[in-house]
Amino acid sequence: MKGSRSGASASGHRPVVGEITSGELRAIPIRGIGEVTPGDSLGETILAALRRQKHRLARGDILVVTHKIVSKAEAAIVPLAKVRPSAAARRWGHRHELDPRAVELALSEGRRIVRMERGVIIAETRQGFVCANSGVDLSNVDGGTSAVLLPRDPDRSARALRRSLKRKLGLSIPVIIADSFGRPWREGLCEVAIGAAGLRVLRDFRGQRDPYGYRLRVTVEAVADELASMAGLVCGKLARTPACIIRGFPYQPGRGRARDLIRPPARDLFR
Amino acid sequence: MKGSRSGASASGHRPVVGEITSGELRAIPIRGIGEVTPGDSLGETILAALRRQKHRLARGDILVVTHKIVSKAEAAIVPLAKVRPSAAARRWGHRHELDPRAVELALSEGRRIVRMERGVIIAETRQGFVCANSGVDLSNVDGGTSAVLLPRDPDRSARALRRSLKRKLGLSIPVIIADSFGRPWREGLCEVAIGAAGLRVLRDFRGQRDPYGYRLRVTVEAVADELASMAGLVCGKLARTPACIIRGFPYQPGRGRARDLIRPPARDLFR
Repeated sequence: MKGSRSGASASGHRPVVGEITSGELRAIPIRGIGEVTPGDSLGETILAALRRQKHRLARGDILVVTHKIVSKAEAAIVPLAKVRPSAAARRWGHRHELDPRAVELALSEGRRIVRMERGVIIAETRQGFVCANSGVDLSNVDGGTSAVLLPRDPDRSARALRRSLKRKLGLSIPVIIADSFGRPWREGLCEVAIGAAGLRVLRDFRGQRDPYGYRLRVTVEAVADELASMAGLVCGKLARTPACIIRGFPYQPGRGRARDLIRPPARDLFR
Repeated sequence: MKGSRSGASASGHRPVVGEITSGELRAIPIRGIGEVTPGDSLGETILAALRRQKHRLARGDILVVTHKIVSKAEAAIVPLAKVRPSAAARRWGHRHELDPRAVELALSEGRRIVRMERGVIIAETRQGFVCANSGVDLSNVDGGTSAVLLPRDPDRSARALRRSLKRKLGLSIPVIIADSFGRPWREGLCEVAIGAAGLRVLRDFRGQRDPYGYRLRVTVEAVADELASMAGLVCGKLARTPACIIRGFPYQPGRGRARDLIRPPARDLFR
């Protein structure tokens, strides 16, 4: 199912789906994006940074951006001084040495609490994601006086960025918006896709036969999450590199949405 | 915390840790590995495939292999004809249209069942991983008559492969052994690291300041899992490409173990 290198190159062809050989894959960090402020056009900002870097987006590329610059451009930032913590947020913050205003935001951005134990709040966000603190984060904002929220509708944000790139470049570039999520059972955070446009986020191998003739029964690969994780390795946490190009991945074009990566609660054994 | 490209190049330097700029990252599939059988030396097999491909491992590279070839080399394969399913396995298999012998293996390879509902068995394996069917898998083995188990001790397998490469090349190449795991709350599988040697599997940013001066409190990145996911994008499920080289990642050398990616049950809110 992997396309060849040339299938996803800048040669003008669509990514080839259905080939067996896989090609070399690259993640190219986009540097020099600088500070993003409310109202900025991310498309323009990213293309300007690429021009300075003497890079350009080519057909077959995927653009991955960390959600933080999307939230900043969309003004999804809350100065903590404006937050009035509830009694519950104050109690929780006091007990676990957390800023009660950040706790208040985590609680109010969640539509349901999945777990609230040992200083950890795992919530289902308005967008449907299950993650720590409803995705509310104080890092890489302004030194700790404001919190950044998840974009209201990250799939819509991804579509808007994709449209903006298409207008300016005449190219259809799939876009993934990434955030770092924890996981049950495993330590550490991995980047996952919280927004997507222009590609199928899941690759469904069910019903296909492996090279030995066995028909796959359950294999569905979360390619958008794997692409986000790959991007996480070059974007980093301290590196001021909030975006990268992924080149050489034979993605499946389509109307994918990161929302499709959320397991419906009725089929989820862990909510 | 990302090193520069040159820091992880073939120029003979150790990967640089602590630099701010991140470099380009590449995943290079290793093709032509062919069928792996019990007793094979994976190190020799992989190096032979690389020679045919006119590629070579260079200082700074990371080798990622899918667990299946490790299990095959270690003879962790069970012909289903030899499995006697218990009454419980027969009932479960009958109810959910699953081969009772595969169910029996999933049950016997688990040391604890975390969930067993709606045809899904989520178990804690002997190795401590929490995953579906204790990692027992019928795909990419022999067409459905045998099951492959997880390697008994994947960290030890990774160390052995790393030593083998060191003997043959004189290079210290970190090794990651990957498998596809599902996740609660999200659809689809992602590759994760089930074995590792030669690199730190987690990158701990806690206590460091972001570019805005905010001191990170909770950020620990599961780099080995992100590297496994990146590898998953080139290795594929149908592609007979069970290994790849990751080049350009400024890993932290060290005695990392994939075991350290398992959250201790006492700190886990979802077991």
